[in-house]
Amino acid sequence: MNAPVNFDTYDVGFDIPAKPGMAEKDIQTPCLILDLDALERNVKKMGDYARAHGMRHRSHGKMHKSVDVQKLQESLGGAVGVCCQKVSEAEVFVRGGIRDVLVSNQVRDAAKIDRLARLPKLGSSIIVCVDDLDNVADLSKAAVRHGTELGVFVEIDCGAGRCGVKTSQDVVAIARAVEAAPGLTFKGIQAYQGAMQHLDSYEARKEKLDAAITQVKDAVQALKSVGITADLVSGGGTGSYYFETGSGVYNELQCGSYAFMDADYGRILDEQGKRIDQGEWENALFILTSVMSHAKPDKAIVDAGLKAQSVDSGLPVIFGRTDVKYIKCSDEHGVVEDPQSALKINEKLRLVPGHCDPTCNVHDWYVGVRNGKVEVVWPVSARGKAY
Amino acid sequence: MNAPVNFDTYDVGFDIPAKPGMAEKDIQTPCLILDLDALERNVKKMGDYARAHGMRHRSHGKMHKSVDVQKLQESLGGAVGVCCQKVSEAEVFVRGGIRDVLVSNQVRDAAKIDRLARLPKLGSSIIVCVDDLDNVADLSKAAVRHGTELGVFVEIDCGAGRCGVKTSQDVVAIARAVEAAPGLTFKGIQAYQGAMQHLDSYEARKEKLDAAITQVKDAVQALKSVGITADLVSGGGTGSYYFETGSGVYNELQCGSYAFMDADYGRILDEQGKRIDQGEWENALFILTSVMSHAKPDKAIVDAGLKAQSVDSGLPVIFGRTDVKYIKCSDEHGVVEDPQSALKINEKLRLVPGHCDPTCNVHDWYVGVRNGKVEVVWPVSARGKAY
Repeated sequence: MNAPVNFDTYDVGFDIPAKPGMAEKDIQTPCLILDLDALERNVKKMGDYARAHGMRHRSHGKMHKSVDVQKLQESLGGAVGVCCQKVSEAEVFVRGGIRDVLVSNQVRDAAKIDRLARLPKLGSSIIVCVDDLDNVADLSKAAVRHGTELGVFVEIDCGAGRCGVKTSQDVVAIARAVEAAPGLTFKGIQAYQGAMQHLDSYEARKEKLDAAITQVKDAVQALKSVGITADLVSGGGTGSYYFETGSGVYNELQCGSYAFMDADYGRILDEQGKRIDQGEWENALFILTSVMSHAKPDKAIVDAGLKAQSVDSGLPVIFGRTDVKYIKCSDEHGVVEDPQSALKINEKLRLVPGHCDPTCNVHDWYVGVRNGKVEVVWPVSARGKAY
Repeated sequence: MNAPVNFDTYDVGFDIPAKPGMAEKDIQTPCLILDLDALERNVKKMGDYARAHGMRHRSHGKMHKSVDVQKLQESLGGAVGVCCQKVSEAEVFVRGGIRDVLVSNQVRDAAKIDRLARLPKLGSSIIVCVDDLDNVADLSKAAVRHGTELGVFVEIDCGAGRCGVKTSQDVVAIARAVEAAPGLTFKGIQAYQGAMQHLDSYEARKEKLDAAITQVKDAVQALKSVGITADLVSGGGTGSYYFETGSGVYNELQCGSYAFMDADYGRILDEQGKRIDQGEWENALFILTSVMSHAKPDKAIVDAGLKAQSVDSGLPVIFGRTDVKYIKCSDEHGVVEDPQSALKINEKLRLVPGHCDPTCNVHDWYVGVRNGKVEVVWPVSARGKAY
């Protein structure tokens, strides 16, 4: 048995995996831990980059879903506000005190539009994306009903193949409707190329982004030709922000994963052919897991399975170890190949998740650690807020 | 815009996707819905089967993580109790009033063992699985410390390749240690063949289970030869329960997915070569999703992506439709192929999730519907309880 825990000090269990002041070795697993030093370095680095290049950075809260992480990105990284994907996330960020919120997505349901239109009353400015004329009318009615003002981005599908219009003609038509609609203010363009972020090769990513930039420039020009100015042109992710920055047309970045990193992003290569988790960004997010069975000498079973992560982008990677490998994931178990029987029962491993966003969405808490101690326990404030 | 919602009646948003009495069409998406008629038929059918065959059924709560669903399985399906995989889940079920709880997994961490050993004080009987002699000593000390009694199953790895011992010699050695340990009671054997449940062919599943049964019989015989009786021999899942039932050695089933069904289980074939979701069980669980963008005529974008489900076992299937197909899943979006542009904005679709267990674990609520109305809203009581 591992060293006895002082239960009088550590009233853990049931609802929370750790308490501030606890030794890292006593954290209840599986849970998410944040290496606070690495997180702060990532946040500061992106903030410095944006400032040096005259770009606004609106950090993407859909990744971390945490008011505390967002506040760090604003205070230490100079982020101008948050973007998120759902009205329920926006509600969490607004109630948490975030004053500039972009819902970088479409809101179509009547009840959700109503909730969105109420949010400015709580003191935050709200922008939402639109790709359909009918939606303009619905948003306008709701804003008028509540006496509020909603900012609007017209969304361009610049290659991701999800929401967004494809032609500058459509961009102009929607922007004009927004300008004419009471309660709405045209704020600019949303153009996030989500489909290229994870391509390994820098050149392959650049090619996709060059096409997006051409499309966005054409739309901005078309707007200008009818007398409409796009104050903000927003987009960019961890695999592309330098392209948007150098584009001459974007002025706002929306990076999210850079702060935490994950195994799938870590594998992509920078201009020099170096993995981006080997210098550009540091792994700050880990799933802490414990060995719970070693009844077979060459296989250790750990306690982080599908309920502790999303494997949509591949299995997690064991951080800092080359002698053991996470090879299989079932509901509650991970199978770790351990050919030398190196792992002991209750030994803890740090897993770099395959994909940070949906992995964070499974957990209720971030346990922030520094120098072997738990420093903070932050709620995943908007966890499960998908509607 | 869809028909206006009466907000005075429906105070939805932020924390809950629906309220009892609401029309199904007004449920906020994405969320989990339960077809209560189908659920009740599944639950009753498994209960009738177990009763008719003289088997105990201990329904697997790791799948639904819901005190309410478990209570339905006990009241309508005659389940004798619950199994779950984590101490934090057991805490939820015990506090919810479930009186017979099996943690069908190993518990090794000192703090977790302590929490487990406290649970019988709340009025439930607790059984836990063991595959290691050291664990017996730790569990015993904790039970003695709290003046409680823990039941113990020795876990056999009968093919899943996760936890569990491989030889009857090991089973006997651990059972003897349990019998000698104060605070512990040897209750029997855990032998769940998790790796074969999803094999499509009935014959392939039978072959794997036959091997497991041989192994379990050998262990029970070895125990008997040293004077130890395994009162309970527990195992069996939705893809195998008829094999364990016919084995002559198992006397307790642990089925979970049968109650909700999912796309991956639905594809497996019964003895007659018929999919098990075409007669044996009904789809009772769905992700309700809405069309939120249709800016491209052949693609509809829906609001259920990776934050609303786990795709580890494949993409979801759109229920009751052959004209449209869910073809791609990203963080917040699903791309639906819609060659005839049949779908309208805000139209709702029922998705059968690829894998029910980790999909349920993403959501906070089950919205139970009947005849187009919301009848109940149940919390996913043990959601996120992974530690």
